Amino acid sequence: MRLTDKGVLIVLSGPSGVGKGTVRAKVFEESHHRLEYSVSMTTRKPRVGEENGKDYFFVTHDEFKARIKEGRFLEYAEFVGNFYGTPLDYVQERLEAGMDVMLEIEVEGALQVKKVMPDACFIFVAPPSMEELHHRIVNRGTEDPARVEGRMKKAEVEIGLAHEYDYIVMNDTVDNAKNRIMAIIDAQHSRSERVLEGYGKKVLGLGE
Amino acid sequence: MRLTDKGVLIVLSGPSGVGKGTVRAKVFEESHHRLEYSVSMTTRKPRVGEENGKDYFFVTHDEFKARIKEGRFLEYAEFVGNFYGTPLDYVQERLEAGMDVMLEIEVEGALQVKKVMPDACFIFVAPPSMEELHHRIVNRGTEDPARVEGRMKKAEVEIGLAHEYDYIVMNDTVDNAKNRIMAIIDAQHSRSERVLEGYGKKVLGLGE
Repeated sequence: MRLTDKGVLIVLSGPSGVGKGTVRAKVFEESHHRLEYSVSMTTRKPRVGEENGKDYFFVTHDEFKARIKEGRFLEYAEFVGNFYGTPLDYVQERLEAGMDVMLEIEVEGALQVKKVMPDACFIFVAPPSMEELHHRIVNRGTEDPARVEGRMKKAEVEIGLAHEYDYIVMNDTVDNAKNRIMAIIDAQHSRSERVLEGYGKKVLGLGE
Repeated sequence: MRLTDKGVLIVLSGPSGVGKGTVRAKVFEESHHRLEYSVSMTTRKPRVGEENGKDYFFVTHDEFKARIKEGRFLEYAEFVGNFYGTPLDYVQERLEAGMDVMLEIEVEGALQVKKVMPDACFIFVAPPSMEELHHRIVNRGTEDPARVEGRMKKAEVEIGLAHEYDYIVMNDTVDNAKNRIMAIIDAQHSRSERVLEGYGKKVLGLGE
């Protein structure tokens, strides 16, 4: 028996290099939750093997801009000439259907979401230390030294915004971070505001 | 690695008959947490087999009243001529030592604790339905019909105060309730206010 009818919106964010994509994949691998990943919308062209509606919703620039005007994004950003965004209607439909929906987005996008849906659950994935973050960025081997420093500076700014989030989850190991996130999602379903809306109202006759 | 230095105070409460004692025992049976049960203080005489400091701290009426005057209770109540209370200094000492401390107390006591320590985590254990609560009270077989009705009336009043709690946990099965409570306790350790005080400040250099 579920205590709440509507799903929880979970916004997973954190500095790039912290490993939030890996943690997110682990959560979905082991999740017994009714949890869905929110598919983003983009104007960039599909890469080989990418499927529309699975990897991204692929749309034209005109379609994307029309959606912006109509206020149909929870958040969006432009990145090297292309737009990326979270379709609001899709997320709302899934939440209403009782599914928990997880977004994995940049810090800037997360703060946009907070303005629109302050009741969502905001989780910041943090490195165990700044040294370890540096280590992880270097070890990817895809960045030259100048870009590593640029990413570290950006990470420092983003970590400085961690207080805007409801939870801070340290990614010391992927399993630890996954366990922390799963506990947070479970706990959301027992939050009294939510329970009072569903089971509290219907079964216990509260808040009427 | 723990994200916070100080333990979390968890206040477990709910109407009598809901089975909170059983749920609490289950949590302690399976807990991998650094979780301790707070031993209450009482003026009543020890029963056969009860140990001082384990079942209760047994004190005289004079000692209890002196402690009340000194503000050394987190909450207390009088019940059929005896006092029962939660010693504040004991709880604080354990929290400072990094242990999570759980109180299992009546609704009235929980609301007293909320005034003193609003940052504690307040969990209300609720029945799956009022019919089921009635069923559980009757099935104990210890109450005559008039007292059953009295307890149901009291339970209705207490359930009406559930919105004062942070979480409402339905005790449909002991295992479900236990799992919900354990997720809530885990999640508390990732709450950003807490993380920023410990790991955030020391490791990430935040909030200085």
